[in-house]
Amino acid sequence: MVIVMKSTATKEDIKQIERLLERLDLGAHISTGMERTIIGVIGDKRLLEGVPLELMSGVDKLVPIVEPYKLASRTFQPESSIIRIGNSSIGGEKLAVIAGPCAVEGEEQIIEIAKYLKSMGVEFIRGGAYKPRTSPYSFQGLEEEGFKLLAQAREETGLLVVSEVISTEFLDQAAKYIDVIQIGARNMQNFQLLREVGRLKKPVVLKRGLASTIEEWLNAAEYIMKEGNYNIILCERGIRTFETYTRNTLDLSSVPVVKELSHLPIIVDPSHGTGRSSLVRPMSRAAIGAGADGLMIEMHPNPKLALSDGPQSLDFKEFGLLMEDIKRISQVVGREM
Amino acid sequence: MVIVMKSTATKEDIKQIERLLERLDLGAHISTGMERTIIGVIGDKRLLEGVPLELMSGVDKLVPIVEPYKLASRTFQPESSIIRIGNSSIGGEKLAVIAGPCAVEGEEQIIEIAKYLKSMGVEFIRGGAYKPRTSPYSFQGLEEEGFKLLAQAREETGLLVVSEVISTEFLDQAAKYIDVIQIGARNMQNFQLLREVGRLKKPVVLKRGLASTIEEWLNAAEYIMKEGNYNIILCERGIRTFETYTRNTLDLSSVPVVKELSHLPIIVDPSHGTGRSSLVRPMSRAAIGAGADGLMIEMHPNPKLALSDGPQSLDFKEFGLLMEDIKRISQVVGREM
Amino acid sequence: MVIVMKSTATKEDIKQIERLLERLDLGAHISTGMERTIIGVIGDKRLLEGVPLELMSGVDKLVPIVEPYKLASRTFQPESSIIRIGNSSIGGEKLAVIAGPCAVEGEEQIIEIAKYLKSMGVEFIRGGAYKPRTSPYSFQGLEEEGFKLLAQAREETGLLVVSEVISTEFLDQAAKYIDVIQIGARNMQNFQLLREVGRLKKPVVLKRGLASTIEEWLNAAEYIMKEGNYNIILCERGIRTFETYTRNTLDLSSVPVVKELSHLPIIVDPSHGTGRSSLVRPMSRAAIGAGADGLMIEMHPNPKLALSDGPQSLDFKEFGLLMEDIKRISQVVGREM
Amino acid sequence: MVIVMKSTATKEDIKQIERLLERLDLGAHISTGMERTIIGVIGDKRLLEGVPLELMSGVDKLVPIVEPYKLASRTFQPESSIIRIGNSSIGGEKLAVIAGPCAVEGEEQIIEIAKYLKSMGVEFIRGGAYKPRTSPYSFQGLEEEGFKLLAQAREETGLLVVSEVISTEFLDQAAKYIDVIQIGARNMQNFQLLREVGRLKKPVVLKRGLASTIEEWLNAAEYIMKEGNYNIILCERGIRTFETYTRNTLDLSSVPVVKELSHLPIIVDPSHGTGRSSLVRPMSRAAIGAGADGLMIEMHPNPKLALSDGPQSLDFKEFGLLMEDIKRISQVVGREM
Repeated sequence: MVIVMKSTATKEDIKQIERLLERLDLGAHISTGMERTIIGVIGDKRLLEGVPLELMSGVDKLVPIVEPYKLASRTFQPESSIIRIGNSSIGGEKLAVIAGPCAVEGEEQIIEIAKYLKSMGVEFIRGGAYKPRTSPYSFQGLEEEGFKLLAQAREETGLLVVSEVISTEFLDQAAKYIDVIQIGARNMQNFQLLREVGRLKKPVVLKRGLASTIEEWLNAAEYIMKEGNYNIILCERGIRTFETYTRNTLDLSSVPVVKELSHLPIIVDPSHGTGRSSLVRPMSRAAIGAGADGLMIEMHPNPKLALSDGPQSLDFKEFGLLMEDIKRISQVVGREM
Repeated sequence: MVIVMKSTATKEDIKQIERLLERLDLGAHISTGMERTIIGVIGDKRLLEGVPLELMSGVDKLVPIVEPYKLASRTFQPESSIIRIGNSSIGGEKLAVIAGPCAVEGEEQIIEIAKYLKSMGVEFIRGGAYKPRTSPYSFQGLEEEGFKLLAQAREETGLLVVSEVISTEFLDQAAKYIDVIQIGARNMQNFQLLREVGRLKKPVVLKRGLASTIEEWLNAAEYIMKEGNYNIILCERGIRTFETYTRNTLDLSSVPVVKELSHLPIIVDPSHGTGRSSLVRPMSRAAIGAGADGLMIEMHPNPKLALSDGPQSLDFKEFGLLMEDIKRISQVVGREM
Repeated sequence: MVIVMKSTATKEDIKQIERLLERLDLGAHISTGMERTIIGVIGDKRLLEGVPLELMSGVDKLVPIVEPYKLASRTFQPESSIIRIGNSSIGGEKLAVIAGPCAVEGEEQIIEIAKYLKSMGVEFIRGGAYKPRTSPYSFQGLEEEGFKLLAQAREETGLLVVSEVISTEFLDQAAKYIDVIQIGARNMQNFQLLREVGRLKKPVVLKRGLASTIEEWLNAAEYIMKEGNYNIILCERGIRTFETYTRNTLDLSSVPVVKELSHLPIIVDPSHGTGRSSLVRPMSRAAIGAGADGLMIEMHPNPKLALSDGPQSLDFKEFGLLMEDIKRISQVVGREM
Repeated sequence: MVIVMKSTATKEDIKQIERLLERLDLGAHISTGMERTIIGVIGDKRLLEGVPLELMSGVDKLVPIVEPYKLASRTFQPESSIIRIGNSSIGGEKLAVIAGPCAVEGEEQIIEIAKYLKSMGVEFIRGGAYKPRTSPYSFQGLEEEGFKLLAQAREETGLLVVSEVISTEFLDQAAKYIDVIQIGARNMQNFQLLREVGRLKKPVVLKRGLASTIEEWLNAAEYIMKEGNYNIILCERGIRTFETYTRNTLDLSSVPVVKELSHLPIIVDPSHGTGRSSLVRPMSRAAIGAGADGLMIEMHPNPKLALSDGPQSLDFKEFGLLMEDIKRISQVVGREM
């Protein structure tokens, strides 16, 4: 932490800060510049929690030096994490594909998809049981029945199951049926949900919030890790910008950035990230090119009949073409499928 | 709803859509333009839920005509709502001021503030018991103890109590102690929380999400109203933009916009909206000038010692000056204090 | 300037930076923290221009301490500037109103408006002669003929004339006819235009760019001032965000922020800032409440017939109501009309 | 164009619009819905320029149906454009690489780079002669001398030369020395510059503005094409968002979107798009994966000594690795190098 003093700060202002830091067992390094004095704070900055230094006489601003998260940081753990899920894993050499419908709609639909995915060599199926929808009049999901159908799909095919939990009261229910809990973009800063999912120890896909910086996203991961659950897969799914042609702006730079800052694996969801099925294939290739550890893809046997997010879902044929692309591009980036 | 066809759409494409609409008991008005055909859909558009028209052959895009929310709309209720809370109210001629510390820190602090607010003619005290914080290492609030201290402040002063609830499991607890439940910006699309608070029937302050459009905000209100709770006060608190000098960008245009679109009252929180105490007073004047029904202000007997958000809190003297400004400006806009 | 070293930086890395700074005649204050070393650079940071310190071995990031602009800064000139224009001025106690049509359309129109404004006590008329339009197929303005008509309006009424210049080749032409040159939002970083207008010495209204931070805006002013022209009036006109209901998001916080950082006057354009005539009056009140030195308002005798931006223009009656509001609110903020 | 009427619109309101459209020789198709009436306008919508329909009694909003640009549209020209430049081209099967320093700094530097690029099989060299810089105190480029050095580099190596022109008065100068004129992000809506460059007929690299939608970008291209210059290469270089870790947010979705909407080629500049040299290689792979027609890359023999933008420049070794990656990935997307 660096404290930047105003050009008008007095010697007494600076003394007062030195005294405060001393009382907190923190060191102070004073640099007197031509226009400003700056004070470097030495020691555990968490001792400063709740001390509004900004308000002290003569202080202009505070500049944090160390990132606020610790367990999620690559400084803390230099080697990349590999998250084990059943007999599979995410974050290693092999690219992970999580695919399936936006919403679980019924037995026939989900079993058909599961069998298709199995035949394609995919290891994870996704499907929404509880759907966060902007309007209360939109389809809200099959709820527990949806979880049950996903579990049935796993039994019939061996696929691992990923599904979103939108509130703490559904966590126990989810834990019974599913393998990976997804925290959606709108809940990325639902801190109570993060804490509870941290206690559960199940692997978690943590989507980036629509208006979240990468630092806030890693702080959200830190909430989960602080409770003891280190099995986190980050998922870039687009941020909100002024561009309206796409549903969101898929920020693929976050992939190499996360790789620099954190040891956690990161996958990309080009379906929500663009909102248009015609963009899913090129943006999937781009994601793997950028270094992502995998993809989350919305697909549906018949997108025209999907109960939600049809416009961004691929059909079986389109999904097959995407898988071929990914297979070929994986070799260029030193990965496999 | 208007369906815009591609310039390459065939007659058969158009026929197929007509047949589909017919099956759904919806009418179709076809306009054949020079370059495009457009189809106006006549009837209850909710019959179209889950029908991804965008994917049908020849369709270019869909254009919604009617806003998706109903109960929150001024079309549905032309006269402005006044929300009754105890012997007070928000939304009528009298401007409401909700003031208090970011976080309840202890008995002495909250009682001192409550007595001061009472002496200033303020009717509502706010204070956080559960604090949503970006980092898990920051102060998270006194939790239930915080609610109890707020209730004690009410007993000693008669002030009405506003406090945030961050997860459904704390709703019953909150209902015991507080008068108005605040839904924070990060939870504006925590739909399960919205539903549960809708069933509770307590007045709700619904803050705008950091990345939420005004339409999404009114949809969030609709979630609460759909469960039967019409006692909603909207609160503008800034949106996230590229500007970094202020913590958020306070979007004061949302005040007259909400007044056009909805009958619900709207207040403004310039403390979170700017993140700097020096901006709170001018932006409070601006908010009332724009037509807001009231303000939510962070203040603290000694901002330098506040456990959270000190930099944006006013002290008693600054708060006094703000109240004078507001009193004078209220007359210009035909309101009173 | 503070140089933050990586946690992995070696002693040699630090030595190398010390040596470099020495060679540049800059001092270095080293603070060795628990996790990081930081180096405060002492001296004229402009000596560092073109030295990519970020790339030196062991460097994590650079943190600027002093704002990059100087002449525009309140540190440089503590008292507020008052810009003299003819017998009038902007920035003093008296609020300035600049009003008129988006585009000059013809003699009859501009003279009718000028006489009306004169009768209302307004001192400045605005009108576009060169119009920057998103589409090349939209009306682009009357060009030089527009400037001439504005000059004629001045002759007949004594009003001072404000009009936009969109490219350096029209500056001499503009200088002949008009009193205040407007630099539009799209040209805020047209640095050649800024330099040329700086040499011209005419008063300048400098609009904020759609995607410009307040710091970049003040840097743009610095370009003009560096050439010797200190007669700058800043104009907030909305920034681009994800909200689509309004044309832009009017960032009124910029008003008190600019007042803190700079001595230059700042006015607000709620017409472009919102894009809707129904929002102009409330947002004008808000702007004055926030402390603006004046307003720029689009109005038209018959907005329904305006050749551009009709939807955001006021008619005479609406403009009259706005003027009354402003008159009353000006007293609350210690200004006059 | 569709006119959506308010729910309160009267029959007379609708009649009046019908009469107006009739007078303008436009047809009207009326659809009377349950809640609203909508009017489809049939005919050349440019007849409506300057008619503010939004202000007519009973009108709620206007919904444009056809995109506003024509010459740049894929509807107008279905096959992809290939831009011929000297003996080379951009937009065909072969990926284009434009590389070089941010700024031309001197003969030795630019010739060294040119020879290196030649040896790597690169066909285009870029280098700034006129630099748009946020602060007037930053290095502004060598101006005409810079153009001359670029021309010298072409003579010695045969490379084609790309350089930015920041104002109309430098266009003739540029035309003498360089092969491709770059319009920078800050000038994307400098409409006078667009018009003049349109008359010049030289190939143009048109960068996307920091706050520009894809539609506005294509409109900017339309300005150039309307003057007769069809030789346009679009260049995605990142948009401004709330994320601060990267300098901009590189919006790679714009690549497949532009491919859908327009026939013009599109390249990607990951150097400005991210502002960090460590991200350039992964984002270059991503850009080609997304379908870009080429890359614009900043590189420098010694980034630590670059006079501008050093932190985002690659050195020769890093550039070599990038070229290898691109070569391998080009095959996956059916392109060649």
